[in-house]
Amino acid sequence: MEELVTLKHGAGGRAMRRLIEATLAAGFSEDGALEPESVGLAAMDDGAALRLGDRWLVVTTDSHVIHPVFFPGGDIGRLAVAGTVNDLAVMGAVEPMALTSAIIVEEGFRHADLARLQGSMRETCAEAGVTVVTGDTKVMGRGEIDGVVINTTGIGLTERVVPDCGLRPGDRLLVTGSIGDHGIALLARRHELDFEGELVSDVAPINRLIAAALEASVGGISAMKDPTRGGLASALHEMAEKSGVGITLHEPSIPVTPTVRSAAEMLGLDPLHIANEGKAIIGVRAERAEAVLAALRAHPLGREAAIVGACSAEHPGRVVLDTGLGRRLVSEVEGEPLPRIC
Amino acid sequence: MEELVTLKHGAGGRAMRRLIEATLAAGFSEDGALEPESVGLAAMDDGAALRLGDRWLVVTTDSHVIHPVFFPGGDIGRLAVAGTVNDLAVMGAVEPMALTSAIIVEEGFRHADLARLQGSMRETCAEAGVTVVTGDTKVMGRGEIDGVVINTTGIGLTERVVPDCGLRPGDRLLVTGSIGDHGIALLARRHELDFEGELVSDVAPINRLIAAALEASVGGISAMKDPTRGGLASALHEMAEKSGVGITLHEPSIPVTPTVRSAAEMLGLDPLHIANEGKAIIGVRAERAEAVLAALRAHPLGREAAIVGACSAEHPGRVVLDTGLGRRLVSEVEGEPLPRIC
Repeated sequence: MEELVTLKHGAGGRAMRRLIEATLAAGFSEDGALEPESVGLAAMDDGAALRLGDRWLVVTTDSHVIHPVFFPGGDIGRLAVAGTVNDLAVMGAVEPMALTSAIIVEEGFRHADLARLQGSMRETCAEAGVTVVTGDTKVMGRGEIDGVVINTTGIGLTERVVPDCGLRPGDRLLVTGSIGDHGIALLARRHELDFEGELVSDVAPINRLIAAALEASVGGISAMKDPTRGGLASALHEMAEKSGVGITLHEPSIPVTPTVRSAAEMLGLDPLHIANEGKAIIGVRAERAEAVLAALRAHPLGREAAIVGACSAEHPGRVVLDTGLGRRLVSEVEGEPLPRIC
Repeated sequence: MEELVTLKHGAGGRAMRRLIEATLAAGFSEDGALEPESVGLAAMDDGAALRLGDRWLVVTTDSHVIHPVFFPGGDIGRLAVAGTVNDLAVMGAVEPMALTSAIIVEEGFRHADLARLQGSMRETCAEAGVTVVTGDTKVMGRGEIDGVVINTTGIGLTERVVPDCGLRPGDRLLVTGSIGDHGIALLARRHELDFEGELVSDVAPINRLIAAALEASVGGISAMKDPTRGGLASALHEMAEKSGVGITLHEPSIPVTPTVRSAAEMLGLDPLHIANEGKAIIGVRAERAEAVLAALRAHPLGREAAIVGACSAEHPGRVVLDTGLGRRLVSEVEGEPLPRIC
């Protein structure tokens, strides 16, 4: 039977990884074009790292297809800048050098909305300390594309690359704040659900928060990743598998706001599977975990940071949830439950 | 009245430049985040150039939205790689360091077609001597995007940046081969027109051709640009305006294949306004023009290269066509006549 692309192939989970490995990345990893120790396509990390003298040039790209374009807590412009800045940051490039911005817009889109998105991109760039240096504009006909999509590619330099595969047994796992906010806010908005309290996306550039963590860790950070599509569960599965360690999460320690918790319950969703756009998972040697936690909490974007788990040599590649009452395996979903979340 | 985006805003001509200046680029150029002499967004060049030690890091991005995805002479995968490699090359970065590839695909697209596009990207990368180091995959629902679009961003290092604004009076203008092939081939294919002879796109990475020209010029190349959307006319208008020179083209010298010429005539189009995907315009000091021409013609992709015009201090910003019988102004069109040409 002929295989066709389905929505789950874009949802950040197992299905997407399989599609990329089978078709889009096939062959490139065998080209041997990169120097040893470089991070290339085969690593399937948040970006690539290329040797440049005694430093590393980190490169990352993302196309943003979120719907709706304006959502509670942000818009596609802010998302595009923050998403790319954060991908650079979790690889260790916390001072982004430059961004590119390539916009595809549907015929009939309002000039005023484009200008609003551009203003939002510029504000978010200022927060992150970066600028857009080059761009591209394409227009597609009515019905050929839904609204607007924005690709941002980021470059940055770092002396030390932090991979997503460096976890070792004994390492502690931190998250920089509450989880599920972005996905649940989008879901509520898209389905016009009414929940008590304010549901807003957490979309934000967190490069300066991560810089503080790196400094406090004194080289003790072993791995980082931003849990976007597929949520904490997908990101942790990927980290555990690539690092060859088992992960045990302590459920009561995982920060979830009461509003997100009750909204997720009503919708039958697990916050562990929901996308975030202003959070990072940080793996750190046990002896530096408290210092990194303190540095995160001292930053406005890290006040809810928490140590949520630890790595072990047992059950490698698996993620176990300790609920406080018992233990269960965290399933790796096929993908994010909601399409076009980022 | 509320202003809306129209197809001409994506067509590479005057309308697009105005939209970008008014909304998308607004503000970024005032941020002063770049070092002096850098090429940023305000330059509206083929890419950006950032100081890195004693070299320049050139960065360029393009989203490819061509329809149909497979066309005579190429496909969107080849186009994406060649387009980005060529943008780097015309800024002087003839040895691309790395590409990123971000794909947005419509639900229902065939896996086999994705694999075919990936194979085509990989082949074109091999021709250009580059590899894809990182990527992104998004899926949009049926009817939310038409087929597949691919964003490629490229980075490369160069010791000397060649801008598109460096023309001086007396410089000669070369094109590296026949013009109009890409746009006319697409138009014929899309409208199922039957023309004598074979109409195929010229899509190809020309970084090695340009490297040969740069070497032969011994520093005499003053400006380069690849005449994609909007064709030779748009690119030359932009170069003349930014450089503050007048350009006179000698029409009989401009290489156009007989098939493209007759097809364009039947369609009432001017090959000067039609997109190319494997050509460059090169401005060179008069005394090095013949040497550069010889170097171009010695390369398989430059056999039809020609000296097509010269720059003067007269009529700055204007492009004049000397037909051999008389002279007329070359109009700058609002944009490429065919949408989704690249």
